[in-house]
Amino acid sequence: MFTITHRWQQARSGQLHTDHGLVPTPAFMPIATRGSLKHLANSDLTTIGNDIILANTYHLFLRPGIKVLKQVGGLHQFMHWTKPILTDSGGYQVFSLARLRLVSPDGVRFNSHIDGHEFFFTPELAMDIQAAIGSDIRMCFDYFPGYPANRAQVEESVRLTTNWAERCRAVHSVETSRERSLLFGIVQGSTWPDLRARSASELRAIGFDGYAIGGLAVGEPPEIMYHVLDATVPLLPAEQPRYLMGVGQPEQILQAVKRGIDMFDCVLPTRNARHGQVYVHTASQLVEQNLSLVHYTKLSLDNLSYQTDSQPLDPLCDCSTCTSGYSRAYLRYLFSVHEPLAARLATVHNVSFYIQLLRDIRINLALY
Amino acid sequence: MFTITHRWQQARSGQLHTDHGLVPTPAFMPIATRGSLKHLANSDLTTIGNDIILANTYHLFLRPGIKVLKQVGGLHQFMHWTKPILTDSGGYQVFSLARLRLVSPDGVRFNSHIDGHEFFFTPELAMDIQAAIGSDIRMCFDYFPGYPANRAQVEESVRLTTNWAERCRAVHSVETSRERSLLFGIVQGSTWPDLRARSASELRAIGFDGYAIGGLAVGEPPEIMYHVLDATVPLLPAEQPRYLMGVGQPEQILQAVKRGIDMFDCVLPTRNARHGQVYVHTASQLVEQNLSLVHYTKLSLDNLSYQTDSQPLDPLCDCSTCTSGYSRAYLRYLFSVHEPLAARLATVHNVSFYIQLLRDIRINLALY
Repeated sequence: MFTITHRWQQARSGQLHTDHGLVPTPAFMPIATRGSLKHLANSDLTTIGNDIILANTYHLFLRPGIKVLKQVGGLHQFMHWTKPILTDSGGYQVFSLARLRLVSPDGVRFNSHIDGHEFFFTPELAMDIQAAIGSDIRMCFDYFPGYPANRAQVEESVRLTTNWAERCRAVHSVETSRERSLLFGIVQGSTWPDLRARSASELRAIGFDGYAIGGLAVGEPPEIMYHVLDATVPLLPAEQPRYLMGVGQPEQILQAVKRGIDMFDCVLPTRNARHGQVYVHTASQLVEQNLSLVHYTKLSLDNLSYQTDSQPLDPLCDCSTCTSGYSRAYLRYLFSVHEPLAARLATVHNVSFYIQLLRDIRINLALY
Repeated sequence: MFTITHRWQQARSGQLHTDHGLVPTPAFMPIATRGSLKHLANSDLTTIGNDIILANTYHLFLRPGIKVLKQVGGLHQFMHWTKPILTDSGGYQVFSLARLRLVSPDGVRFNSHIDGHEFFFTPELAMDIQAAIGSDIRMCFDYFPGYPANRAQVEESVRLTTNWAERCRAVHSVETSRERSLLFGIVQGSTWPDLRARSASELRAIGFDGYAIGGLAVGEPPEIMYHVLDATVPLLPAEQPRYLMGVGQPEQILQAVKRGIDMFDCVLPTRNARHGQVYVHTASQLVEQNLSLVHYTKLSLDNLSYQTDSQPLDPLCDCSTCTSGYSRAYLRYLFSVHEPLAARLATVHNVSFYIQLLRDIRINLALY
């Protein structure tokens, strides 16, 4: 299900095989939290050349809910998206977004962030929702202890995460008799190398199709994140995909690829686009050959200097926003008067920038 | 500049010639108030087959302002739209949107609805702004007395509208030495047939490239509007285009075409789309041959009955929303969770519906 085609030092490129097609890695997954990448149609994603999207178990559980998801035949059918979908488990959202009531070995009792309705989330429920969604890659329900957390809290999060991963594995093993999907475990352990090692080792013992590193990019300095990656990645199976959750800025993606990460997701390109922050190449090749540098800058379209700037957002970009004659001046103006087209055009560009970044990384890895 | 190709009773079809191309009439102009049709890119409008858009003098004067419009080379260049643009004069917005300070024979003193900044609008300024916009069809600055208004108020509005139309004509005659654009007068007179007649006669004496009927679709019953049209249209030049401002619902457009109207604009398709109200054909031919009936209904996507409805919005529609696999169920869901894609997909459909409606009307007129 995962083929590594090129290696350079710790980095590698390859292909992840799913029922909805191949995903070339290293891969970036734009975020379609509620089954829609904000402002974009599927045709935009196809034009951009995007191979996989990420949707969210917690949000889709609240609305439209399992019943509707089952009735409409799953999320691919519902949103008419024919390529792969990864779903995160909802663990992070339950702990960060919902009003938490009680964490027990059984699961988590919480109140919906929308209407306060009380729910009880369990590993089994998280797997049932993901089965109703019909995602190609599913994540175990994990326990994120927050950041910073003390050692006892992190030990507890590793213990529960392992226990819940066993239960997810059990449910998934039954489910996959009906359909083929991949199940990933999530390594917790915060910034303690020995707890990361314990978590990785316990998950490996259960056995998953891939391994995610959770609990990073949650406010710690990048150097801490790189240290954790240095300590954790070598403990993961060499031949299986590795997914760094929630990362990140282009230079962080580059650093993580160099440390052996294969998959990424992040709100930055889409969220920044909605705030008029756009990524711009500063060299014709985004990524240097030794993956040491990514040549880009970020423009804030609220800057007065773009008021009459007739250039495209990024003259080196071939996305539809940059090649359809839309100027920085027009984009700046659209943002200033809150026209919805602004966010759409900027989102097309920023997602294209990330997709191009990962393509450049893969090309560089193939060249070695 | 206007060629009538077919006539049937009072109705006619034809072509309006502008520097940015032909507009087949009867024509509907979707509204791009601030130089952007909400949620749509130019490529969407091209796919829909839209020939002309309407932009707003008052809004573009406030932002981005004359100076920027001139620096970027006008609105066509700014928004990279290559087809015709009509600008309304700002008269209606000054009287309905802004906080009015003083109306005098010279012009109108008002406070911006955005930041309260005080401006003095004159017929000359309205023409200067439209020249900076570079619109193909420009409207005289008129005085809308509100609705209902008493006879004295309406007489005053006709008097000022005529006076201001003379001044607009004078400015435009000088400007057109540099570029070719059409100038339309706006007939006021509310529901008094004799005041409508006076307004029409005074404007004809000045002489314009086309004539608009203003001050309708402002809250009066449709029957009143049809009576005003019956009384006013025959007083307008037979060979020049006639534009009914702010109309309307599909059946109102049909009734107005039957009374000899050539051009329309209305917020309904775009505003309804943003509120999850979509137009749906109920017969393969939208319009009956004697222009007596338009076969459509309106769906409210907040209705629970669409929760798992796998049909496209309108199975008889060939717009990109209806032919790309998006279901009513998915659209309903996107609206319910406030995803911006919802408004975009519904706007594509509703604008397509109106463009299709006018195309059907033109085909019917060509068949007689």
